[in-house]
Amino acid sequence: MTLLLNCDLGESFGSWTMGVDEAVMPYIDQANIACGYHAGDPVVINNTLTLAKQHGVTVGAHPSYPDLAGFGRRSLNCSMEEIHALLNYQIAALDGMARNHGLELHYVKPHGALYNDMMKRDDIRRTIMQTLAEFHKPLHLMLQATASADQHRHEAETYQLPLYFEAFADRRYDDDGLLLARSKAGAVLNHDDMLQQVQQLQDTQTVTTVSGKTLPLAADTLCVHGDNQAGVDAINQIRQLIHSS
Amino acid sequence: MTLLLNCDLGESFGSWTMGVDEAVMPYIDQANIACGYHAGDPVVINNTLTLAKQHGVTVGAHPSYPDLAGFGRRSLNCSMEEIHALLNYQIAALDGMARNHGLELHYVKPHGALYNDMMKRDDIRRTIMQTLAEFHKPLHLMLQATASADQHRHEAETYQLPLYFEAFADRRYDDDGLLLARSKAGAVLNHDDMLQQVQQLQDTQTVTTVSGKTLPLAADTLCVHGDNQAGVDAINQIRQLIHSS
Amino acid sequence: MTLLLNCDLGESFGSWTMGVDEAVMPYIDQANIACGYHAGDPVVINNTLTLAKQHGVTVGAHPSYPDLAGFGRRSLNCSMEEIHALLNYQIAALDGMARNHGLELHYVKPHGALYNDMMKRDDIRRTIMQTLAEFHKPLHLMLQATASADQHRHEAETYQLPLYFEAFADRRYDDDGLLLARSKAGAVLNHDDMLQQVQQLQDTQTVTTVSGKTLPLAADTLCVHGDNQAGVDAINQIRQLIHSS
Amino acid sequence: MTLLLNCDLGESFGSWTMGVDEAVMPYIDQANIACGYHAGDPVVINNTLTLAKQHGVTVGAHPSYPDLAGFGRRSLNCSMEEIHALLNYQIAALDGMARNHGLELHYVKPHGALYNDMMKRDDIRRTIMQTLAEFHKPLHLMLQATASADQHRHEAETYQLPLYFEAFADRRYDDDGLLLARSKAGAVLNHDDMLQQVQQLQDTQTVTTVSGKTLPLAADTLCVHGDNQAGVDAINQIRQLIHSS
Repeated sequence: MTLLLNCDLGESFGSWTMGVDEAVMPYIDQANIACGYHAGDPVVINNTLTLAKQHGVTVGAHPSYPDLAGFGRRSLNCSMEEIHALLNYQIAALDGMARNHGLELHYVKPHGALYNDMMKRDDIRRTIMQTLAEFHKPLHLMLQATASADQHRHEAETYQLPLYFEAFADRRYDDDGLLLARSKAGAVLNHDDMLQQVQQLQDTQTVTTVSGKTLPLAADTLCVHGDNQAGVDAINQIRQLIHSS
Repeated sequence: MTLLLNCDLGESFGSWTMGVDEAVMPYIDQANIACGYHAGDPVVINNTLTLAKQHGVTVGAHPSYPDLAGFGRRSLNCSMEEIHALLNYQIAALDGMARNHGLELHYVKPHGALYNDMMKRDDIRRTIMQTLAEFHKPLHLMLQATASADQHRHEAETYQLPLYFEAFADRRYDDDGLLLARSKAGAVLNHDDMLQQVQQLQDTQTVTTVSGKTLPLAADTLCVHGDNQAGVDAINQIRQLIHSS
Repeated sequence: MTLLLNCDLGESFGSWTMGVDEAVMPYIDQANIACGYHAGDPVVINNTLTLAKQHGVTVGAHPSYPDLAGFGRRSLNCSMEEIHALLNYQIAALDGMARNHGLELHYVKPHGALYNDMMKRDDIRRTIMQTLAEFHKPLHLMLQATASADQHRHEAETYQLPLYFEAFADRRYDDDGLLLARSKAGAVLNHDDMLQQVQQLQDTQTVTTVSGKTLPLAADTLCVHGDNQAGVDAINQIRQLIHSS
Repeated sequence: MTLLLNCDLGESFGSWTMGVDEAVMPYIDQANIACGYHAGDPVVINNTLTLAKQHGVTVGAHPSYPDLAGFGRRSLNCSMEEIHALLNYQIAALDGMARNHGLELHYVKPHGALYNDMMKRDDIRRTIMQTLAEFHKPLHLMLQATASADQHRHEAETYQLPLYFEAFADRRYDDDGLLLARSKAGAVLNHDDMLQQVQQLQDTQTVTTVSGKTLPLAADTLCVHGDNQAGVDAINQIRQLIHSS
């Protein structure tokens, strides 16, 4: 199996531009499209869908807590009823707009603080799983490949919800299969180490942790970043590496 | 043909309640559900859809300019691209959430200033018509029955877009088939005059204008208001009147 | 000393009304005015200030996390820099608008989740204290009278920040001087018990806790609620009780 | 008299950056600071004020219609009561935050659509003038120098409101002293023509219009743009030109 590449896109808002979506889109497989709650607006969503269709990229919804000023990176203490509803609203908006472009929404990857809360809190993860499973069309959930992957797979099976496990190309893992905090030395890999980690993930479905241990990490997709041209170049190299493996 | 009754619903927001939706829903045929841009939020939308399903009421989207503080009553000078996109976003959100309840979104009635601008400006009306016609599923547009109804019907035919024409039960019409401005004396009918106007609309498809003239006004649906219990009582009387005709 | 009465006001927003501000204002001493982040908007703020001036009520700012849909009741995980800045913005807006009415902003009472976080988290409480102390004019902070009052008073002294301690008329206290959770039986006092608690707070600066223990609770001000006419009646009774003590 | 240079600043929002404020600030005299309604947020405002103080730049409020997604460029049909209140809110917020930095807010320049509406509509201009005149501290209003300058000066005198008239360095004027629409050929001046226009404004208080006519245009301040490094370079050249005149 070849690792897919997923990237957050459609994160401009009104007059503010973020990311180089046009440069990134040709090199990725899955576009996580912001739904207007942390970034994106209806015009931006339409433009991003046009671009995804043009390059044959699979589209996913990238829903968030409602927090434009905080870019969805601040946890908001919502009830499960609220999380259920705000997911449905954002996913439905993106799904319908994608259909208008002749595209089918394929998966959902929660954004920022909602993603982190999903990985940490059972109640939130189960609410997300149930919401997606009960959505009017089949959807996949994208979540982080960790040492708890078996548990998460088991939970998802109870909802008959298919999953994408994602790994991070440029982040160092600890021995528990979690990302080393960005504040710690060596948390973000340099270019060569990133390519080495991608090769290892692709070839052996393992990572070498910060302590030097080899940890199994079965990922379906790699999270890559298209903030600027350097990011695009890195994505291009990762893509070549994976497809030549 | 029996006149349908349509009513704006789901206009609560967060901790603020507006309208008596539970009391109104049993008596109406069509629920114009706010989409979060002038009123409503994902939890309110879900609750309103639950209620509509329970009473077998047809659901429509009630999209607006983005203006919570102004309740969508202030015209916002948007580009046609923006109107196209913000309609798609709101309609898609409501459509997808309705499907999750096993309901099908049937029509769209623009709200407030967007409704008024649609009636006044050709470019906005055509943009709305085209947006609905190109939506991924069939939708009706609800607009005001005026002396320009033939022209509007002709425009809609070019998009193959079916229409609902609506009349107002409690407002006095002028000789051009427009509503007398609320600021003018006699603009809002008293209870008896309202029932008389409904009867006349149902029986003869005409209204008696402020000058005493009889004006043809072919309506498919009547706009009624469920702000409070008095409104609900009036709706109930209108309903009985129509169904006994 | 006579207990003051403080009440949350100005919590309407756009077309949505909340509370009966006109009925409440004559009976209170301190108006906690929403600043637009959880409730209120510029027109509502102006109207509330007009009313406060008319009745000679002291005005305070009631700032919140930015969360209209959640009415500021959901904790938002902000940085201390963000809390400092969002407090300054809201307090400055209210202070300047009050001056335009010839009023002086006198105190700040954080709202909802921000209030709860202030009572629970040292870093947030210290950030709030420092922000108020460094504001360009003298301000008081209103916070909850608890068993930690001495510690809070000591903290505030390091910032030379004067405090108002508030007690709750209608809530049962536990033995730690905290409010019994609303979910627990007896958490909200009935009318007679409320009046009894007010009398006791006024006369002996103590409360009788859920276990029957007498706990010292030195309060400067009582939090009362003006949601509806029943609330206004209760406020009126509390006022008479206090002023006849 | 030497022309002042004013520039819109503080237009970043949350995670989105706009403009190169740090590079621009050293070269300008007056910073028009966004107040959070079309751009800016409390953290951005604080950072912009810090920068203004560091470089001794006079600070003004740059209030807008409430429209983040449209960057305040879309006219919103507000009542005069709403315009009065939303101006007060934004100006008060900026004024109070400036005081916390030891700065005094000196003037107000409405932004985008609100600025255009002020120039076009008497009721809006008078509402803005009255609001500023009644603000609790003295403020100047910045507006466009046009052929109606005498009328505007007369209006302002009735409110005892001091004015700054601004001219545009890089835009071609028509014979009525209005800006040639951007859609028209030659509307935006090239670099040399811009410097020539600045020189002429400084030396003779006139502009050469699109038809070749010499039109009196008495300006106090020039609007310059700091979107990128090219803009900063142009500002620097304009500054040198003015100060060597």
